Amino acid sequence: MIIDRVTEPLKVGVLGFGGLGQAAARILAPKKEMTWVAAADRKGYAYEATGLDVDGAIAAYRGRNSVGYLEPQGTLSNNSIEDLLSHGDVDGYFLALPNLPNTFMADVARQFIKSGWQGVLVDALKRTSAVEQLLELQNELKEAGITYLTGCGATPGLLTAAAAVAAQSYAEVHSVKITFGVGIANWEAYRATIREDIAHMPGYNVEAAKAMSDEEVAALLNKTNGILALENMEHADDIMLELAGICSRDRVTVGGVVDTRNPKKPLSTNVKITGRTFEGKISTHTFILGDETSMAANVCGPAFGYLKAGMALHRRGMSGLFTAAEIMPQFVK
Amino acid sequence: MIIDRVTEPLKVGVLGFGGLGQAAARILAPKKEMTWVAAADRKGYAYEATGLDVDGAIAAYRGRNSVGYLEPQGTLSNNSIEDLLSHGDVDGYFLALPNLPNTFMADVARQFIKSGWQGVLVDALKRTSAVEQLLELQNELKEAGITYLTGCGATPGLLTAAAAVAAQSYAEVHSVKITFGVGIANWEAYRATIREDIAHMPGYNVEAAKAMSDEEVAALLNKTNGILALENMEHADDIMLELAGICSRDRVTVGGVVDTRNPKKPLSTNVKITGRTFEGKISTHTFILGDETSMAANVCGPAFGYLKAGMALHRRGMSGLFTAAEIMPQFVK
Repeated sequence: MIIDRVTEPLKVGVLGFGGLGQAAARILAPKKEMTWVAAADRKGYAYEATGLDVDGAIAAYRGRNSVGYLEPQGTLSNNSIEDLLSHGDVDGYFLALPNLPNTFMADVARQFIKSGWQGVLVDALKRTSAVEQLLELQNELKEAGITYLTGCGATPGLLTAAAAVAAQSYAEVHSVKITFGVGIANWEAYRATIREDIAHMPGYNVEAAKAMSDEEVAALLNKTNGILALENMEHADDIMLELAGICSRDRVTVGGVVDTRNPKKPLSTNVKITGRTFEGKISTHTFILGDETSMAANVCGPAFGYLKAGMALHRRGMSGLFTAAEIMPQFVK
Repeated sequence: MIIDRVTEPLKVGVLGFGGLGQAAARILAPKKEMTWVAAADRKGYAYEATGLDVDGAIAAYRGRNSVGYLEPQGTLSNNSIEDLLSHGDVDGYFLALPNLPNTFMADVARQFIKSGWQGVLVDALKRTSAVEQLLELQNELKEAGITYLTGCGATPGLLTAAAAVAAQSYAEVHSVKITFGVGIANWEAYRATIREDIAHMPGYNVEAAKAMSDEEVAALLNKTNGILALENMEHADDIMLELAGICSRDRVTVGGVVDTRNPKKPLSTNVKITGRTFEGKISTHTFILGDETSMAANVCGPAFGYLKAGMALHRRGMSGLFTAAEIMPQFVK
């Protein structure tokens, strides 16, 4: 069995405490196999070996924009990740950070390498180019004893893994087509994520999207009736499926529709995997996410599933870079 | 990367040479990463280090009921597995054997343990009780240096893996419901598989089904117009998902419809994974197999994907028993 019979809960940290980080903390709260011991944002961090209080941390962040204000475990810091690494005892981190700028996640990985910390890192990166930057670090991660799992959110992540499983029926995979629908009632709770989406729209890029004020985002959404329609997005599902040997990246396409004014999804998120069987038949497997599952559930759930799987690898001395397409996530109780 | 950059093709054997074993050989033939070097059935075996000829082997089996008649690589033997193990150099075997009687697969595993052979074994077992027998062997497999992956066909296998991925969105999994449709034009080519299906029908068991003559099977199918409707089947998906910590086995149900007179599937094979998200929403993810994919493609494709993944584990010194729900299969080129 690759599943570890965990006797002690894993001590887990969450970096970034926006919408995604807060959802991650809520997901961890009832888990028996993981304890949420650490959080960090731009302005501070909080650490408590016996577990942090989710409501308190969220209140601190909402009220004063940093978990560093959480009493008594919070500490304000301009080097929050570095300081947390030197103070906390953490088995693995979920990097719930918006990758803005696009080099940010790789920079964070370098910070971990430099610190001498050993453990499991999981990100929910979106862009192909961000994974390419991490690929350049794979030897350093390996030597540092860090087991880094990239692309472990919803897409890439959950849907990439489903595509990797589905591909098994085929002698050749012709196309992997991911179409997501996201409905959020209040985009303001996901400011960074929305800007990442806008960066995928024609006429925008990462820098332009990041530079937009909340008013400019609101003005754009007013023009589109709250809808962001995204096609041929740069999503790391492509490089991940290519690295897993399933198909070349040009056969993978990602598009979607984000409704920023309605929690109901404008369409059911799905991935279609088309290929040729050994008998020469062309067919398509389809994996469809239930509409009632939120972006937060579909991103953070898999992220911790991969963190648990990563810990099993780490304990067997396997470090370096892995993707969601090559590891089976493990269910976290 | 867990994916090995394979420099030399894996030397793969197929045990059992009925419909499934023959399809397995056809799937292997064009692969660059695997060479089909060995086959065995009840009456003989064939081995060729540079690769066996698929058409020749199938002709030998169809004409005279054993690959042992293949010239010049075939050998007739009443201890075909044992003899093959002492003569061949094989990295991994797909056990394409009907598990009749229900203790057969565990007996074969014992033969491998006893022989001193080390490598990867993959089965496409169906029944929960058969996996339970293998669980009793897990320490022996580990000590023997055998990496054994069980339940690696379609269901259990492909659909179990899809369920394990899908479960990640949920805080709790309420049900996993597998419904398969199988259409085969000529059941005579899958004599053993059909008997395994019949064994799941009310009023039958494994022994009774195995004892049926072809005429008795044909008479039964005449009564049902060629349709076998199966409900609440004993399928190892349940124990595999339980072992992976996803849900208790009573939450997993498997049923299906087999049309023995029509290659078109009577319904699209699918798995529905229902659970509760961390926010308290109940939802269902669905994974649907394309109708054009055959049972052979959906069983043998995953089996070799798990064999490749098993080899990556084996080379890292990981032996013992694993299931399709805890390992990500790797695509075989």
